[in-house]
Amino acid sequence: MSAVPLESPRSKGARQKLLEAALALVREQGYAATSVDELCQRAGVTKGAFFHHFRSKDALAVAAAEYWASATGAFFEAAPYHRHAEPLERVLGYIDFRKAILRGELPEFTCLVGTMVQEAYATHPDIRAACEAAICGHAATLESDIEAAMRRGGVRGDWTAQSLALHTQAVVQGAFVLAKATGTAEVACASLDHLRRYVELVFGRARPITTPGD
Amino acid sequence: MSAVPLESPRSKGARQKLLEAALALVREQGYAATSVDELCQRAGVTKGAFFHHFRSKDALAVAAAEYWASATGAFFEAAPYHRHAEPLERVLGYIDFRKAILRGELPEFTCLVGTMVQEAYATHPDIRAACEAAICGHAATLESDIEAAMRRGGVRGDWTAQSLALHTQAVVQGAFVLAKATGTAEVACASLDHLRRYVELVFGRARPITTPGD
Repeated sequence: MSAVPLESPRSKGARQKLLEAALALVREQGYAATSVDELCQRAGVTKGAFFHHFRSKDALAVAAAEYWASATGAFFEAAPYHRHAEPLERVLGYIDFRKAILRGELPEFTCLVGTMVQEAYATHPDIRAACEAAICGHAATLESDIEAAMRRGGVRGDWTAQSLALHTQAVVQGAFVLAKATGTAEVACASLDHLRRYVELVFGRARPITTPGD
Repeated sequence: MSAVPLESPRSKGARQKLLEAALALVREQGYAATSVDELCQRAGVTKGAFFHHFRSKDALAVAAAEYWASATGAFFEAAPYHRHAEPLERVLGYIDFRKAILRGELPEFTCLVGTMVQEAYATHPDIRAACEAAICGHAATLESDIEAAMRRGGVRGDWTAQSLALHTQAVVQGAFVLAKATGTAEVACASLDHLRRYVELVFGRARPITTPGD
């Protein structure tokens, strides 16, 4: 993940370190399990520095979700799938890219905001809103390619580009949950394969492989 | 959800109440955010009763995941989708049933084990294993119908009945994450519609609606 400069050089140190500590610790152990003390220890900053930059752990969580949206936004914007000439290839390329980055340890490839919102959605409205903005904002980056692919392929149906874009995020988030449950990325890779097959089928790019009369 | 008797009548009271309190509180606010004191308060039992039945909060979490698997197992076993004569109709009926039960408040229809494993997967191996058993055990109940539908439809491909069964669970779990992020079940319903459309397409039951040459 490319780091995104959000602060002036002077104040960047402690704030940036705390944001990165939040990204790491929440993905490792969840939001409620992560204390301010642990965040300071992981970031290598004092508690005074923490409360200089954030009025509370919740405020850091909201900033971390915004930082996550910004950093992942830059990361996906620079990804190779945008280079395909055909819009449907860009959509399929996005799914392939999501599969390709399922590498390393689980806390490295799973999602900060999907993890936080799972536990904090009802008790922390500000965190929920920041997670919604991150997830739905990322989904929205896929909409214009899906729309263009629908137009080009003459695809109609009782679904919209927005709903398919959000569905890709549901599959990605659910794939992370199953990866965490099974302790391996394999099940997540297989779900992304199913998602790719769905997009190919619904756009008429592929047909089901059947032997009628079997 | 139908309650499943797991204990003799005498000891059932406090243990059962604590299991039900865990189901409610974890789905409302997550696992780490839920304290033993809150669990006792919600259950209306003393701390002494808690530690009579469970040696720790983690032990209650493992028992709650097992209770969840047992109770939801009975609930889905009694559901109407099993009555369809055609195996593909039973698979589609399962998806329709999952959509039909997305009712009420978010803590009522979201998943105990998907929530717990999201935060506890790395830090609580026993909880992770119990959540894996619940999610993968439920997925396994779909495999024989998917296999029968594949045989009957002559469906082949580089995927297995097991992988499609697990994919349905990834979609359900991800749909819950997006429902929590957006604060509404609508997005989850739309994802289940996409899943249903995928199953119809991959089994050749439906074709994409396209107007070639548009």
